Amino acid sequence: MPAPLFEAVPNFSEGNDPTRISRITAAVGAVPGVRVLGLHSDPDHNRSVITFAGGEEAVLSGATALAKACSAELDLVTQSGEHPRMGVLDVLPFVPLEGATMEDAVRLAHRAGERLGLLGFPVFLYGAAATAPHRRALPDVRRGGYEGVASRLEDPRWKPDYGPETLDPHKGAVAVGARPFLIAFNAFLDTDDVGIAREVARRIRESDGGLPAVRALGFGVGDRAQVSMNLTDFERTPIPVALEAVRSAADDLGASVESTELVGLAPLEAILQTASYYLGLRELEAYHVLETRLYDLSADRSL
Amino acid sequence: MPAPLFEAVPNFSEGNDPTRISRITAAVGAVPGVRVLGLHSDPDHNRSVITFAGGEEAVLSGATALAKACSAELDLVTQSGEHPRMGVLDVLPFVPLEGATMEDAVRLAHRAGERLGLLGFPVFLYGAAATAPHRRALPDVRRGGYEGVASRLEDPRWKPDYGPETLDPHKGAVAVGARPFLIAFNAFLDTDDVGIAREVARRIRESDGGLPAVRALGFGVGDRAQVSMNLTDFERTPIPVALEAVRSAADDLGASVESTELVGLAPLEAILQTASYYLGLRELEAYHVLETRLYDLSADRSL
Repeated sequence: MPAPLFEAVPNFSEGNDPTRISRITAAVGAVPGVRVLGLHSDPDHNRSVITFAGGEEAVLSGATALAKACSAELDLVTQSGEHPRMGVLDVLPFVPLEGATMEDAVRLAHRAGERLGLLGFPVFLYGAAATAPHRRALPDVRRGGYEGVASRLEDPRWKPDYGPETLDPHKGAVAVGARPFLIAFNAFLDTDDVGIAREVARRIRESDGGLPAVRALGFGVGDRAQVSMNLTDFERTPIPVALEAVRSAADDLGASVESTELVGLAPLEAILQTASYYLGLRELEAYHVLETRLYDLSADRSL
Repeated sequence: MPAPLFEAVPNFSEGNDPTRISRITAAVGAVPGVRVLGLHSDPDHNRSVITFAGGEEAVLSGATALAKACSAELDLVTQSGEHPRMGVLDVLPFVPLEGATMEDAVRLAHRAGERLGLLGFPVFLYGAAATAPHRRALPDVRRGGYEGVASRLEDPRWKPDYGPETLDPHKGAVAVGARPFLIAFNAFLDTDDVGIAREVARRIRESDGGLPAVRALGFGVGDRAQVSMNLTDFERTPIPVALEAVRSAADDLGASVESTELVGLAPLEAILQTASYYLGLRELEAYHVLETRLYDLSADRSL
């Protein structure tokens, strides 16, 4: 039984300066046992998302190193961007991977929150780690960005879970959470009519009565209308179920899906679900995949 | 870059006696670096298939240990079964896995052939390892079983590639080959009419002008007609292409596919092909799958 693995997908408030971004990323990557899986910097929103994984202690140390680097490299007073932000290290979600449960990720979020509190960040726990129902949804926790958090600090319902009860204007506050793996999946339509993509998105997303655990928006990308989806719990709504809903809604509106893309990583389980769905397979588990056996093999050989 | 991995999928001529079968399997599993991935014994055909994998030296040692165990445990003079067999260790194919090419598997087949020759087996190389075009197809090499091989030994076109040019009646001869990964994939129809399954199989298989690298037969399994397929090169005919051909042929004949099954293992690449095909994905590679990154991670952590 291998040790439980976790992923962290923090957002920090710098998307332009490559020197600062690489120093922050390097601080995380230097932690033993941490593997940096991806970095995406968005200059318009002036923020970056770094994805890293490892065992509990490694990911905890990685998160702490990240918070220290953000404090040292970034300053909220001089930072600006389109995206509302509440801190230099803005959001820090933990995701349970192989061998780990959501309870494990919640415990990790609490441990990280305690450490970041000691570093001077007011910490708000959200998602599965939230300590009250009204603090569960990330948009509610971050509402109004830094200024919104500052205005709510007097309200006992918005007392930080860890750390100081006042805001350092240079570093701000951080939302630390636990959530399932999020799959970013986009469908390109055979039209440049963004209105159709927006209407498809409206029909399929949970917030408008559509599929559970699906967030969706319509965009124009190049000469194609795109339905951009976040599947926030692929056990509840798998990729093929979301896509078939898009296909059906697009068909109603006289369009069709031309191609799709996965942004970032998808868990093997989500790929197996997709193959099973379309093949009508009686059974398909990870242990039917050759490479998962070879992985075990390699583990054995390294002993 | 990890060391190239290989799979061996040998057939040996014992499918009934659990003591002998487990002693033979244990001899392979005791070789350091060898992982036994599967064992399937067929009492009717009185033969077993063992699947094992590892690096080149480990798989070579595993094959040698298997040949010795078959010599010690089995006797062709007293063995009988429905399936025509030419030796106690009947067929020994090598399959290139991660990091390995078909040329690597051919070299491994030659090295294994040389060792089995020294152990007293006449060795016929087949598949990608064949030393002449007429020896490429396994059915041609094994035609007539032990008696057929014995009758052809005088013919210079059927001289063994390695080992003695006479047959020991107790151990017989062995076919050693190299081939791509074989996917066993079955489709169950919504009918018990085996004639329909046979006709579907006839229409889609390569030998009757159908899809390349597809073998297919129709069977009755319980109360369902089944199209049983071997995809001998899934890069040429992927799983979804084979299934859509079955669906189309079945539809022509008034039937439809009710469910499918994968027998044994499938490579991750074949599952990704399937997801890409049905989702219309612009791109899907192994490095988009979270677990392949975690595998790298784990390898790093074990250093």
